[in-house]
Amino acid sequence: MSEKLNQLKEILGEVSDLGHAASVLGWDQNVNMPPLGGEARGQQLATLGKIAQEKFISDQVGKLLDDLKNEFAPGSDEADLIRVTSRNYEKAKRVPSEFIAEQAIVTTKAFEAWVEARGKSDFSIFRPHLEKVVDLVHKYISFFPAGNHPYDTLLDDYEPGMKTSEVQEIFSGLRVKQVDLIKKIRAAKQVKDDFLHKKYNEKKVWDFGEAIITKFGYDWNRGRQDKAPHPFETTFSINDVRITNRFEPGSPLSTLFSAMHESGHAMYEQGINPAYERTPLEGGTSLAVHESQSRLWENLVGRSLPFWEHFFPEIKKAFPAQLDGVSVKSFYKAINKVEPSLIRVNADEATYNLHIMLRLELEIGMVDGTMKVKDLPEIWNTKMKEYLGITPPNDAMGVLQDIHWSGGSIGYFSTYALGNLVSAQLWEKINKDIKDLDEQIRRGKFDALLAWLHEKIHVYGHKYDPQDIVQKVTGSKIDSAAYVRYLTKKYTDIYGL
Amino acid sequence: MSEKLNQLKEILGEVSDLGHAASVLGWDQNVNMPPLGGEARGQQLATLGKIAQEKFISDQVGKLLDDLKNEFAPGSDEADLIRVTSRNYEKAKRVPSEFIAEQAIVTTKAFEAWVEARGKSDFSIFRPHLEKVVDLVHKYISFFPAGNHPYDTLLDDYEPGMKTSEVQEIFSGLRVKQVDLIKKIRAAKQVKDDFLHKKYNEKKVWDFGEAIITKFGYDWNRGRQDKAPHPFETTFSINDVRITNRFEPGSPLSTLFSAMHESGHAMYEQGINPAYERTPLEGGTSLAVHESQSRLWENLVGRSLPFWEHFFPEIKKAFPAQLDGVSVKSFYKAINKVEPSLIRVNADEATYNLHIMLRLELEIGMVDGTMKVKDLPEIWNTKMKEYLGITPPNDAMGVLQDIHWSGGSIGYFSTYALGNLVSAQLWEKINKDIKDLDEQIRRGKFDALLAWLHEKIHVYGHKYDPQDIVQKVTGSKIDSAAYVRYLTKKYTDIYGL
Repeated sequence: MSEKLNQLKEILGEVSDLGHAASVLGWDQNVNMPPLGGEARGQQLATLGKIAQEKFISDQVGKLLDDLKNEFAPGSDEADLIRVTSRNYEKAKRVPSEFIAEQAIVTTKAFEAWVEARGKSDFSIFRPHLEKVVDLVHKYISFFPAGNHPYDTLLDDYEPGMKTSEVQEIFSGLRVKQVDLIKKIRAAKQVKDDFLHKKYNEKKVWDFGEAIITKFGYDWNRGRQDKAPHPFETTFSINDVRITNRFEPGSPLSTLFSAMHESGHAMYEQGINPAYERTPLEGGTSLAVHESQSRLWENLVGRSLPFWEHFFPEIKKAFPAQLDGVSVKSFYKAINKVEPSLIRVNADEATYNLHIMLRLELEIGMVDGTMKVKDLPEIWNTKMKEYLGITPPNDAMGVLQDIHWSGGSIGYFSTYALGNLVSAQLWEKINKDIKDLDEQIRRGKFDALLAWLHEKIHVYGHKYDPQDIVQKVTGSKIDSAAYVRYLTKKYTDIYGL
Repeated sequence: MSEKLNQLKEILGEVSDLGHAASVLGWDQNVNMPPLGGEARGQQLATLGKIAQEKFISDQVGKLLDDLKNEFAPGSDEADLIRVTSRNYEKAKRVPSEFIAEQAIVTTKAFEAWVEARGKSDFSIFRPHLEKVVDLVHKYISFFPAGNHPYDTLLDDYEPGMKTSEVQEIFSGLRVKQVDLIKKIRAAKQVKDDFLHKKYNEKKVWDFGEAIITKFGYDWNRGRQDKAPHPFETTFSINDVRITNRFEPGSPLSTLFSAMHESGHAMYEQGINPAYERTPLEGGTSLAVHESQSRLWENLVGRSLPFWEHFFPEIKKAFPAQLDGVSVKSFYKAINKVEPSLIRVNADEATYNLHIMLRLELEIGMVDGTMKVKDLPEIWNTKMKEYLGITPPNDAMGVLQDIHWSGGSIGYFSTYALGNLVSAQLWEKINKDIKDLDEQIRRGKFDALLAWLHEKIHVYGHKYDPQDIVQKVTGSKIDSAAYVRYLTKKYTDIYGL
């Protein structure tokens, strides 16, 4: 059997190489590519996608998977490799390679249109491209057997096994509690955060962010950080895991939190078992679990009081004028200020999930046909008013703010909120295992925390499905109780509720 | 026939896409990649190379080429496409895909070893890798019918149709004249260039280089310049043609000449007929013709008196202290100072070709087995002493200075000298067609020159073979007469011979 396994691994290795090559091209497109390079790049990505698809869904792979199906002991890496690969294979077989090539071309152009539309705050530039993306999504869904909801097909690609109705149920329970908490917070005395919106030097902020994630344990010998229109993490191998970031003068310190966030994704990827490289077990197990890592470092660590008890003297030294007269406690309160805001990635923890719920409703509306693309800016603004009581002054700060739809990633957003929930579930468990975690963080020590995450989560890559690894580590499946406890405790303290 | 042609073009398009994807990965490897990213990158490049090779040498391509062989009118783009593709196909068929994959892995590691070896000036780090490269070169030659000289096989890949003996003949005639000229120059009063070796601000030099090539007509909407260990040009499409550069404190203004040089390559690529994209007619026709473009902008334009009559006031404004009391004529003389030097890319025009002759001899020695890799540092140093009268103080400034061998590019160097010859042949013709060219350059106007090159050379891409396009444009094949006339006139003036 080992010869057949080697044959399979050789093909899977080439498929992985093609995927990673495409990731390099995609990273370059975001970080470096000159203005007119897009059309050829789209063509190149289409070709890489097509060839990878052809190689993966070949009859040879099907035959090898069939032959190897019952050959390995359950729980062994080999058995999980065959299980995960077979599932991906069954799915991929349903999607014609012409579709993938078309999708690559459409989304490359849509990405460029989105960049321009966002820059000019003009939805009409993006609209025809998004309409094409939605058409493609409908086509994609049609390749699969009808589920309870057409959106199930999309969700399953990001969160294997999760159903739209489950997410809706978790969200509806959570929404009540978050809305209730926000009400209490808004009735309380508001915190002051004017010093966060002063002028901060971009390079100094950037360097401070890099100093933080260096202490976290992000390995610069196996990564780098660059400027891009949107922060993201991308993996070319466990030894080349890159992050991007941006600087927004109106919210200068958000660069720090984006660095922590993306480094959380990156440390996950850097920590995966090297034996899984060039197989479908490489990479994180799902977007929600991935997001649990980024959110854990950004929020549970990076917006905690112990963290700033360590870093506040340093940031005050870097920005003495801006932080003149500010105490660590008032800085801590300011970076956790709850305030309905327009931009999801800058939203506070208490309101963040409402941004997600809005997007989920719009995505479901696009998918089941109850909402038209042309109406999205208006629907967006109406719902923002309804959920958060505010209206975007323009589409750049509204419906155009996120990159996802331009890349055809519909079905993705809810995983952000699920990631928040998982991060809190993990946090409760970590604090049981590492009794003095707060004290370690206060001393700027993150090695025990990173080691725990490596050992319990990272190293397994895609070996376990998301719900299984959450269950294995925390004792329960994804649910919102720990997150609600975390939010309530944190904001009760900050706002004196 | 148009259906078969379309089928062929579709396959060739995918092969081109894979090649351009590999170029992106290669560029990234030089410009961005974190230290530990190399092994996976080598694997990815190996996979892309293997798949491109498999696609290109498929029986389907052979059949289509056969069917289309006599279908198109001689001289038509279609006929040239079939002719060039068939020649490449016949060659590629001889090289097993396993060989290409092995080569990609070996050269990726060799490149990293070279970077380290050069940094530490320690040939022993590079030696085992270069030995492997030479073994691969021998293996490669063995795939082809024996020619008059084993080196012919290598040369033909860079300069289709050219024989080792032809190059040796051109070089031996040229060597006598260059050595004679250098003798006369060394006997004359030496020029002063101390002001070129003062401290210059890196960013200002970099920006000045970019200002120059912007005036040349390098299109930044379709390109960019980045730092890398070695200056190079790379093409991802005619709309994404990038250059790299470096800054050497000991020779600060060489950054300007490298920018001009690489922009010459890049403007060639930016000017190729878009109809040739994704076919073997894309890209320049040969390395010598490519080098004729880079050398023309770097030397015939960039080291001319009219050019500095335009730019000298500007560079003096940028570096008033360094150029205090320097006249344009003395600056012109200084940048053309003839002096045996260690680094090929910084060599003056009178000595440059001797660096090439040295490398050609070493390459021929490696290929026919008369020289061992372990002996190269000593042979290098002995020949440097013999030809230029100087000895490198260390291997970083000697045998380790060039990137080429680390990438497996043996057979390449002589094209640099041939490019010099072609640049002078073209220059004589251009000056017949554009009577007031010097005056235009003096006014900082390069549009007529670039348009001439576009019309006569660039647009044709790979449609004509190198000797044919040189013949078509200048009326004769590659020869050294024009270059000798150019050198003699220039240095007679500068040194008052």
